[in-house]
Amino acid sequence: MSHQPHTGDIGFILFDVLQATNQLQALAPFAETDTDLMQQVLEEAARFVADKVAPIRREGDEVGAVFSHGTVTMPPGSKEAYEAFWQSGWASLSCAEEDGGQGLPEVLNQVLYEMLSAANHGWTMAPGLLHGAYECIKHHASPALKATYLTKVATGEWLATMCLTEAHAGSDLGLVRTKAVPMADQPDAHGLGPLYALDGTKIFISGGEHDLTDNIVHLVLARLPDAPPGPKGLSLFLAPKFLPDGSRNAVVCERIEEKMGIHASPTCVLRFENASGWLVGEPGKGLGAMFVMMNAARLHVGLQGVGLLEAAWQMANAYAHERRQMRAPVAAGGSRPADSAGHAADLIVHHPAMRRILDTQRAWVDGGRVLAYQTALELDIARHHVDPARQARAQRWCALVTPVLKAAFTHQAFHGGSDCLQVFGGHGYVREWGIEQVLRDARIAMIYEGTNEIQAIDLLVRKVVGDQGQALAQLLADLTADVAAQGADGAELGRLAAQLQDATGQLLARAAQVPDHPYWVAGDYLRAVTLVLMAWAWARIDHANGPGQDRWSRPGKAMRAWVMPEFDLHIGLLSATH
Amino acid sequence: MSHQPHTGDIGFILFDVLQATNQLQALAPFAETDTDLMQQVLEEAARFVADKVAPIRREGDEVGAVFSHGTVTMPPGSKEAYEAFWQSGWASLSCAEEDGGQGLPEVLNQVLYEMLSAANHGWTMAPGLLHGAYECIKHHASPALKATYLTKVATGEWLATMCLTEAHAGSDLGLVRTKAVPMADQPDAHGLGPLYALDGTKIFISGGEHDLTDNIVHLVLARLPDAPPGPKGLSLFLAPKFLPDGSRNAVVCERIEEKMGIHASPTCVLRFENASGWLVGEPGKGLGAMFVMMNAARLHVGLQGVGLLEAAWQMANAYAHERRQMRAPVAAGGSRPADSAGHAADLIVHHPAMRRILDTQRAWVDGGRVLAYQTALELDIARHHVDPARQARAQRWCALVTPVLKAAFTHQAFHGGSDCLQVFGGHGYVREWGIEQVLRDARIAMIYEGTNEIQAIDLLVRKVVGDQGQALAQLLADLTADVAAQGADGAELGRLAAQLQDATGQLLARAAQVPDHPYWVAGDYLRAVTLVLMAWAWARIDHANGPGQDRWSRPGKAMRAWVMPEFDLHIGLLSATH
Repeated sequence: MSHQPHTGDIGFILFDVLQATNQLQALAPFAETDTDLMQQVLEEAARFVADKVAPIRREGDEVGAVFSHGTVTMPPGSKEAYEAFWQSGWASLSCAEEDGGQGLPEVLNQVLYEMLSAANHGWTMAPGLLHGAYECIKHHASPALKATYLTKVATGEWLATMCLTEAHAGSDLGLVRTKAVPMADQPDAHGLGPLYALDGTKIFISGGEHDLTDNIVHLVLARLPDAPPGPKGLSLFLAPKFLPDGSRNAVVCERIEEKMGIHASPTCVLRFENASGWLVGEPGKGLGAMFVMMNAARLHVGLQGVGLLEAAWQMANAYAHERRQMRAPVAAGGSRPADSAGHAADLIVHHPAMRRILDTQRAWVDGGRVLAYQTALELDIARHHVDPARQARAQRWCALVTPVLKAAFTHQAFHGGSDCLQVFGGHGYVREWGIEQVLRDARIAMIYEGTNEIQAIDLLVRKVVGDQGQALAQLLADLTADVAAQGADGAELGRLAAQLQDATGQLLARAAQVPDHPYWVAGDYLRAVTLVLMAWAWARIDHANGPGQDRWSRPGKAMRAWVMPEFDLHIGLLSATH
Repeated sequence: MSHQPHTGDIGFILFDVLQATNQLQALAPFAETDTDLMQQVLEEAARFVADKVAPIRREGDEVGAVFSHGTVTMPPGSKEAYEAFWQSGWASLSCAEEDGGQGLPEVLNQVLYEMLSAANHGWTMAPGLLHGAYECIKHHASPALKATYLTKVATGEWLATMCLTEAHAGSDLGLVRTKAVPMADQPDAHGLGPLYALDGTKIFISGGEHDLTDNIVHLVLARLPDAPPGPKGLSLFLAPKFLPDGSRNAVVCERIEEKMGIHASPTCVLRFENASGWLVGEPGKGLGAMFVMMNAARLHVGLQGVGLLEAAWQMANAYAHERRQMRAPVAAGGSRPADSAGHAADLIVHHPAMRRILDTQRAWVDGGRVLAYQTALELDIARHHVDPARQARAQRWCALVTPVLKAAFTHQAFHGGSDCLQVFGGHGYVREWGIEQVLRDARIAMIYEGTNEIQAIDLLVRKVVGDQGQALAQLLADLTADVAAQGADGAELGRLAAQLQDATGQLLARAAQVPDHPYWVAGDYLRAVTLVLMAWAWARIDHANGPGQDRWSRPGKAMRAWVMPEFDLHIGLLSATH
């Protein structure tokens, strides 16, 4: 059975736990956006995802994108699903109405992509880059470029790529060598501004070539002739697969990579052979123009992690409630005493080791949703709130929480997904059950959009050491104040926040003496922050649940019993000798 | 470049750290087995593995075993490699000379299989079951069966299978339904004793059908007509693919599974259609006959974990020493200050997060080898030592340490292997570099030969709670006494052993009140025991290394800094409320 989003769970987090409607109605563009409307969008999104996208997951993996002589054929059903997707307006859900979008809050778009990733990560790669490209073109391209490309990208009628990486330049974009030279002989052949000839080869380009849309809009980092070396010499260019006159641009797909997973997504090597392109934004500001969408894209990847873990959990939970294996201890729900002379088999879910896995991973998904949805709300708040102080608080939240979400939940999708696979025993290793694909697909999310190690360095070195812990201290104060304002139980959060605050002080002192120290322990720091955030998330869930349902109290109990004790370990490791 | 075993590393652990030669020469059959001979065997094994087995790993994954109309064609090169393998005597390395074997110590056989698994896990699945089948036939089959099958299986001229699992009976073999009915009309058609008709379908049969050898010897768990339900009703039968008169037995391969990895190993559904077979051992003692080889087989799987992690580490280490990416902090070996205005890229190995991964995983491999090789030596000691007290100590070691090795090192191969993959960035996700295959292959080892959760229950419930912690207390005393006898630094081991002893006492008291409690925390208990064993292993390595080489002191430092602090976490979790 293919994936089915549980909108009840999602709605509880969004509307009951986070009171998203109240938060959004404080923003001018969403003053009229009510819960009913949003719930309806979620239901329709879930139906679309379950009907059109989930069923083609396995074939997408097995057939995969097929490369032949420069063209890429997408796996069966991909194109039909994509056409239905953009034509129904899903691609433009949170784009501005004046650009052809629905003008809905970013948080709904993020939830949509969580559902899509859970149902079919490979297929979702294609539209996954659209929103970033839209923001990039909207905020940096010239009016002429916008007139031709913005609506097409907003609606998803044309798909887009981000051409950053080169064979020798992965995490380190400063090493990019692709050149852009003004085309002196045909300065404005297409009436969209000065033309440049792009020359170089890009690798790892998701959706660099395919048959889903009539055109593909490449956003390309390249270096102008007089550019300095390093990241400050990079400019951004727009180079379409087909030029405005209908001719094919000189962008050649050399091959696609054979990968561990996401086979439905072609990962292309693209050669720009003096391809025609236009500058987007100012010369030398290419990285900045691309990074404008960084927080939203990282959040998107964090939610891929949440979605993939949800997919793995759903599979394992269903299996554990259907299959019987060995006797379980009677106190844990087993059918008879463990020392009985006879023989019986209990449902897998009654075996404590399996119950522990299921409840723990459930807790990660639920807590992850609270954090990710709130982050999406903060993106909306940062953009639209009238109070500059509230905007600043939102920006602080996004800056600090986004790298944590990206690293923690992509990690959890793979490693916690592996725990879910274990529930299946040998069947978990077999394709038929689908869960091994979740692991293979999920593994890439720990790498792309900045590796998880880079997220940790971004958090600790750039954002905590960078301002001597001020923003972090404010975030911790915001979290504890929020829990108090809600009237939720803040004891655990308070204890962890105080310990983190203290450890941060010691870390700053050590970093002043030993400059490389933070680089050794950044992963532990990120993990400690993750657990503080989870304590906040679970305080909110518990509060909303009240005496409440087992569905919500059981994972919270697992989180406190099995996961929270890790906090002390990571705090301890912050002062390790290496 | 394909895998190359590092025999220098292996020899250091075996001969310098563990003084294997002294340990073996105390046993009558190995009184003359000297270091030179063993080192020579290792060098030749390494050459064979690197020349014949490692190069066909990727094609084995990509082409895989191919099923068609009941037959299985193995991937290119598999058959040639296998013929060279058994004809050179590698299959029979530790089999008795009277059975056509080389009569060498078990430890060399285990090291051989570690190398093979590192080089090509999928291919190694075929011979991987041979030694267990050999032991099973040797100790339980009738003289007539032995005359026909023992030498063929000892030498590997014929491969063997273990047919245990059925669709509804995975971890729980008591649920097996396959029937064995005496063939009244042809009681001894082949002169090998009474014939039985086997009827039933087995799943997950590794090497159930293939074209590597002229015959395949299936060992099959089945139920006689009058057998009681449950595990005590199971008997063991031998049913060959071809009967002694050359006719094909009624064993049909229905299909092979599509799996996450080990594609070079066909995982078969085998249907026994009243197939001819003979009883091995006594009726109702089938599980016992199969479990005779359990410790050796589990150790074998633990060493698969060590080998696969070594393979991942070698790949990541080589990559980290070749590729440059971003600036590293100068104190960590970076080429210039992190705040420099210019731009340079440092070798990946100089980035602290990457160095930490490499050193930590190196420490797991090295420590894992110490534990696994000593366990293999204990198997030899249990079999051959003249002193019953030393034999009993060896049996205690094997009973307690084997499930720990199996679970801890298959876990580490997958999760630590994933850390090694991270060193490659995006390239790690691409097939070309080979490391993603290591992860896909390694994942099965956490499941088969008893899932890792079952190993933990075996350790804590059966072996620790089962005897109220006596054997465990003796093992801890043995470990601390050994370190003292060696003159090694026993401070850390002593501290951890005392803590574990104390926690075990509390756990036993709680288990008496709350019978299901151990089932919740068995995984943490196994992890705590793992770290005590690693403390012993690293005390021995450090002692052998002396002031010594960075090669050995650096991983030990990483183990103490980054891994050992986990011990307190797991001890704490033993008293969790759930």
